[in-house]
Amino acid sequence: MSRLLRDRPASTPEMLTAFGDEALLRAALAFEAMLARAQAEAGLIPALAAETIAAACAELPDVGTLAEAAAHAGTLAIPLVTLIRERIADPEIAKLVHKGATSQDLADTALMLQAKAGAALVRRDARRLTQALAVLAEQHAATPMLGRTLLQAAQPITFGLKVVGWLQGAAGALTRFERETAAIQLQLGGATGSLAGLDGRAGEVTERLAALLGLPGADTPWHARREGLAGLASSLAILTGAVGKIAGDIALLAQTEVAEAFEPKVAGRGGSSAMAHKRNPTGCQVALSAAIRAPHLAATVMSALPQQHERGLGGWQSEGPVLAELFEVTHGALAAMVVVVEGLEVDTDRMAVNLAAARVGTDMGEAMLLVARALAAYRKDR
Amino acid sequence: MSRLLRDRPASTPEMLTAFGDEALLRAALAFEAMLARAQAEAGLIPALAAETIAAACAELPDVGTLAEAAAHAGTLAIPLVTLIRERIADPEIAKLVHKGATSQDLADTALMLQAKAGAALVRRDARRLTQALAVLAEQHAATPMLGRTLLQAAQPITFGLKVVGWLQGAAGALTRFERETAAIQLQLGGATGSLAGLDGRAGEVTERLAALLGLPGADTPWHARREGLAGLASSLAILTGAVGKIAGDIALLAQTEVAEAFEPKVAGRGGSSAMAHKRNPTGCQVALSAAIRAPHLAATVMSALPQQHERGLGGWQSEGPVLAELFEVTHGALAAMVVVVEGLEVDTDRMAVNLAAARVGTDMGEAMLLVARALAAYRKDR
Amino acid sequence: MSRLLRDRPASTPEMLTAFGDEALLRAALAFEAMLARAQAEAGLIPALAAETIAAACAELPDVGTLAEAAAHAGTLAIPLVTLIRERIADPEIAKLVHKGATSQDLADTALMLQAKAGAALVRRDARRLTQALAVLAEQHAATPMLGRTLLQAAQPITFGLKVVGWLQGAAGALTRFERETAAIQLQLGGATGSLAGLDGRAGEVTERLAALLGLPGADTPWHARREGLAGLASSLAILTGAVGKIAGDIALLAQTEVAEAFEPKVAGRGGSSAMAHKRNPTGCQVALSAAIRAPHLAATVMSALPQQHERGLGGWQSEGPVLAELFEVTHGALAAMVVVVEGLEVDTDRMAVNLAAARVGTDMGEAMLLVARALAAYRKDR
Amino acid sequence: MSRLLRDRPASTPEMLTAFGDEALLRAALAFEAMLARAQAEAGLIPALAAETIAAACAELPDVGTLAEAAAHAGTLAIPLVTLIRERIADPEIAKLVHKGATSQDLADTALMLQAKAGAALVRRDARRLTQALAVLAEQHAATPMLGRTLLQAAQPITFGLKVVGWLQGAAGALTRFERETAAIQLQLGGATGSLAGLDGRAGEVTERLAALLGLPGADTPWHARREGLAGLASSLAILTGAVGKIAGDIALLAQTEVAEAFEPKVAGRGGSSAMAHKRNPTGCQVALSAAIRAPHLAATVMSALPQQHERGLGGWQSEGPVLAELFEVTHGALAAMVVVVEGLEVDTDRMAVNLAAARVGTDMGEAMLLVARALAAYRKDR
Repeated sequence: MSRLLRDRPASTPEMLTAFGDEALLRAALAFEAMLARAQAEAGLIPALAAETIAAACAELPDVGTLAEAAAHAGTLAIPLVTLIRERIADPEIAKLVHKGATSQDLADTALMLQAKAGAALVRRDARRLTQALAVLAEQHAATPMLGRTLLQAAQPITFGLKVVGWLQGAAGALTRFERETAAIQLQLGGATGSLAGLDGRAGEVTERLAALLGLPGADTPWHARREGLAGLASSLAILTGAVGKIAGDIALLAQTEVAEAFEPKVAGRGGSSAMAHKRNPTGCQVALSAAIRAPHLAATVMSALPQQHERGLGGWQSEGPVLAELFEVTHGALAAMVVVVEGLEVDTDRMAVNLAAARVGTDMGEAMLLVARALAAYRKDR
Repeated sequence: MSRLLRDRPASTPEMLTAFGDEALLRAALAFEAMLARAQAEAGLIPALAAETIAAACAELPDVGTLAEAAAHAGTLAIPLVTLIRERIADPEIAKLVHKGATSQDLADTALMLQAKAGAALVRRDARRLTQALAVLAEQHAATPMLGRTLLQAAQPITFGLKVVGWLQGAAGALTRFERETAAIQLQLGGATGSLAGLDGRAGEVTERLAALLGLPGADTPWHARREGLAGLASSLAILTGAVGKIAGDIALLAQTEVAEAFEPKVAGRGGSSAMAHKRNPTGCQVALSAAIRAPHLAATVMSALPQQHERGLGGWQSEGPVLAELFEVTHGALAAMVVVVEGLEVDTDRMAVNLAAARVGTDMGEAMLLVARALAAYRKDR
Repeated sequence: MSRLLRDRPASTPEMLTAFGDEALLRAALAFEAMLARAQAEAGLIPALAAETIAAACAELPDVGTLAEAAAHAGTLAIPLVTLIRERIADPEIAKLVHKGATSQDLADTALMLQAKAGAALVRRDARRLTQALAVLAEQHAATPMLGRTLLQAAQPITFGLKVVGWLQGAAGALTRFERETAAIQLQLGGATGSLAGLDGRAGEVTERLAALLGLPGADTPWHARREGLAGLASSLAILTGAVGKIAGDIALLAQTEVAEAFEPKVAGRGGSSAMAHKRNPTGCQVALSAAIRAPHLAATVMSALPQQHERGLGGWQSEGPVLAELFEVTHGALAAMVVVVEGLEVDTDRMAVNLAAARVGTDMGEAMLLVARALAAYRKDR
Repeated sequence: MSRLLRDRPASTPEMLTAFGDEALLRAALAFEAMLARAQAEAGLIPALAAETIAAACAELPDVGTLAEAAAHAGTLAIPLVTLIRERIADPEIAKLVHKGATSQDLADTALMLQAKAGAALVRRDARRLTQALAVLAEQHAATPMLGRTLLQAAQPITFGLKVVGWLQGAAGALTRFERETAAIQLQLGGATGSLAGLDGRAGEVTERLAALLGLPGADTPWHARREGLAGLASSLAILTGAVGKIAGDIALLAQTEVAEAFEPKVAGRGGSSAMAHKRNPTGCQVALSAAIRAPHLAATVMSALPQQHERGLGGWQSEGPVLAELFEVTHGALAAMVVVVEGLEVDTDRMAVNLAAARVGTDMGEAMLLVARALAAYRKDR
């Protein structure tokens, strides 16, 4: 409930909406509506029943009331299914709501629908970031600057070499993320994952439901098999870390005494409430905060892996908020750094001055060749 | 923004309110109002100016607008101070808003005011929990049951011995938490923590402000010295872990095949959307989820400790949401387990049956003596 | 230095050897020897010099002395290169040792050579585990047992369905691990990753060195681009979590009151120093300990991602011990559970009794079909 | 087993010895010897038996053999007790070895004896560090320098103000650590913590054993009540973070472009294998690496808190290596930074130049007063 403390400093309106209550409710209602429709298509329930159920899923219920009821019941499915049933006059049809499904089927599928939307945002802005990095790297392929190791002046590089390092890190992390989104799948298993309750037509129902919801189906239910989610979470944290690396370097370059690169001037951004002259690296701040938090969030999902028996106690219930937060901080970091990188102010004169002052020679080795090779590889992969 | 996914499954309405936007805004406005008043009392600014500023801090601004502005600026203080100033007709007085303070002074102090409210809730329910445990331990001081080690039948204990273990764990964790709440202090340091900008009256202003806000003053500003917050965060996570231990044991005892203790029957709680016969340990679920998440949240605050120079980049900005979440999940776990322990259903007959079936004898050693000793120690400390 | 506290309770002699001092020294010396040879093949240094250097790298130095010297210098490369040079009579040749390389080139490449050996062990035993799980699943495809959710009796499943869940979790985690081993690459970049110091022949030298060491080359040096290592670390932690899930379930099934499955009897294993009758799930203990530790180790590598500039301070130096530990606990968990699963004692009668006692009917849904489908998918992937 | 990769880069010979195999064996043998002696003093066993047992505990067994046997058995106690018994000719006396104790009694007590030795080292060097910081702060109480916030030039401070911030952080963390060492207690509970097996004389035996081993006794056994260890672990991680803050600041001040403070020149330390001119902040590197790792280690101990029933499976077995590692990296960080702070080279001229260049005025506020106050508070507490 804290937009000021938690939501907006760390994330974007788009991602907060993707993991907001309304999106969750829409997803949950879509699960129940499409489950009925899929069962009708498979001949398990009458088409009329399916349409009645779908109609009862059309209107969003009050979030506050439902949140209290779900917290009391221990799961969202119970009050939501009750509410849908109450909207249906025919008790025979009402009974068919949620047929063959269990609470976790609804919870997991709704979370995956939200994750799908979130993944699209991450992908879009990660691509935009890598694209901006590629442009910047090419532009400065031959711009000499001081290479720094262990926070000490070392030997010359080009700024382009630094930037392709950022690019490869972000691009590699994006590739991993895209791979791990394969975990975003339909969940449908019923009480114990045996698909009892679907009258022997589970295969067909699953296939139809997956198509209707736009999610891939899973080989078998994954109620207590969560390594896919842990992989997805890790990939988000690693992407955030790769973005944090860029933010950290830019913040170091923007130090008053170094002054080689700066976040773009944006009216009203990066000021100080105490010092009018300041120009704080506010975009980097967002990304660095995210990079501190993300590893611990990913590790939470990994800590939850040993879930008991067919569906666990405490483990999967801890994943939803954590995964949401990972998507949120990752997108916050990406969005902030897209602006920073696209508008980065580079002071090549100062780079030359700092390089000369360090008296470390001018041998940049094969920096330019490395930049060209990395850019070529990046473009080939896209 | 997600009550369904994040807030209510994991926490309580009271704690969510304590860390909600309205509470944050009230705290932030109180900081600015009382800062002016303290400066007036110290003779730095006219009394009239202070009252004008305080009046301008009375009304809560729109959260949404402010959240956007704060995210843009990179800190809440900038738009909030602007807004307060805009409410003041006299430009000379408007300039005095936030005098001598920096963004982090406001952010830290507001967070500490929220933490103070949160700590009261944790303390109240942790005490209630330990009290319930003490009653339960006394009641079952001599109730024989099977002791289990490495998840195998071992030797007899009494149920009271198990419960005093829970009690000592929770009580020890509460003691640590109470000690660590000493970190909940006023923050006032100005731009670089040198207390410049208070016209040489910093000591007096700090003392007055601390009194007006009901927070202890700090020896010196702690902008980049965060080990107190890390200690507070750890103590919350450890308390949650101690509560999680209780939840884990009860969930194991409630297994169908063991059936020695059960969460109280509460209408509409612990049901299953797929199986009418089920009685799920829903309170334990909340606590176990919290116990999975809390260590990683505490570690986040620790990872942020090496903050740069006088006020860091990314580190302290990551603490607020994490600390809020720690208070939230800790209180969620406590509140859930208070209900469970106060209403725990204990089947002493089944305990006797399981003990006999294990054929491990009847020597309970000094279990009763240990219970008595632990209860005496607990009562002496209270 | 603690075999009793740290090494052997958690890992296997094979993996401890792979990450032991001797293996590290051999790898480090191989790096220097093969670097010289690669440079000779590329025409940078005389063939005689390369052979002289390689000869000077043949004998392992004293570990204790070198460890002290490396800790003093802040990096292994400095004393090791000094030592190799001292072994060479001709000062002109001695100067050519480590030509064009930097400390981190040696450290990273040696770590990767160790990781390659470690990965082979993980792969071997993860495959053996999944193979044993496939056999077990097939064997019990139709064995009825009680499905349990939220630690409560739910509805019937077959034991085979539970086991294919374990199988899919482990197999999915193994697939991810194999993919992430792509990060195990040669490191060669020189002081700032610009490949200065290789006389414009960096490409050829890199290619030759990669071939000689049996490691893939990297597109560009990855001194400060560590997302590959973070991916590798995560994949190990997730694999450990998948194994921990199996261990947790077996430990629950082996509870005295449940008694459906047991670790195999192994003379001298699983006993108790206090209770002669006990049969502790010692293999599960190893895996569960590993599953507690691994997420935090993986998160450490992620926390280190924002490394400064061309080569960072503190970040990459923290990865080596953590990655070693991850390989160690992962292999410890795998090796322990291979024994457990291959020899698992299953009491199908007791499964039937517990199922009947729970009075949850006999509808196992499509459990057998799911087992068959999962096994087919698993076999197709192999 | 890896001195080169894990032990020496991160820790000190002293601490590695404290947590080494020999220290562990001495502690474990002391437990058995003193347990017998305490039982003799309490009249449970004959004095002659106690002396015979103590004599059988005098000689250290072979570590390698024992480590294999312990790994096989699943606990050190089983092979060690067997070995001690084999050394005793009289079978009646041999039976009395380990009387009334369980494996975890031995493991926990031995770990606590090691922790006690480790705590003394941490305390010693943390005090030495705070003492050096106090001297440095006093010396530079009035040395003007640029205050930096969000990695940007802000307003003037004195170097003394920065250093007292370091001091207060380290001193506060040391105070917490000293408090948390109260968890270093004797463990004696027998199989299920009921103190069965001590013939009704448990109180006396415990008291005697505690005195003989130089450890405080616990109110009741703490086999599955681990919040004290989690508190200890957290306090180590927080201390490491406070030291990491110092290291981070010094590394930033030592940047070529800032050049205000440097690690002392030590022959052979901080060099580069590729660049002769470099002077790397090697001490800071050790501390920063430790600060990355420590939070995750502490969180591991917290994640293990919900241990099952009377003695858990996997949880407590994960604590020993992690706690050892925390002591090791904490002491490594402390020892490295003691050298850095005691010998810190401060360039006050450069501080003046950088301050002037930033054009942020000269108002240092009450910096000197704050330094004086903080030093007075520090000295009062000592």
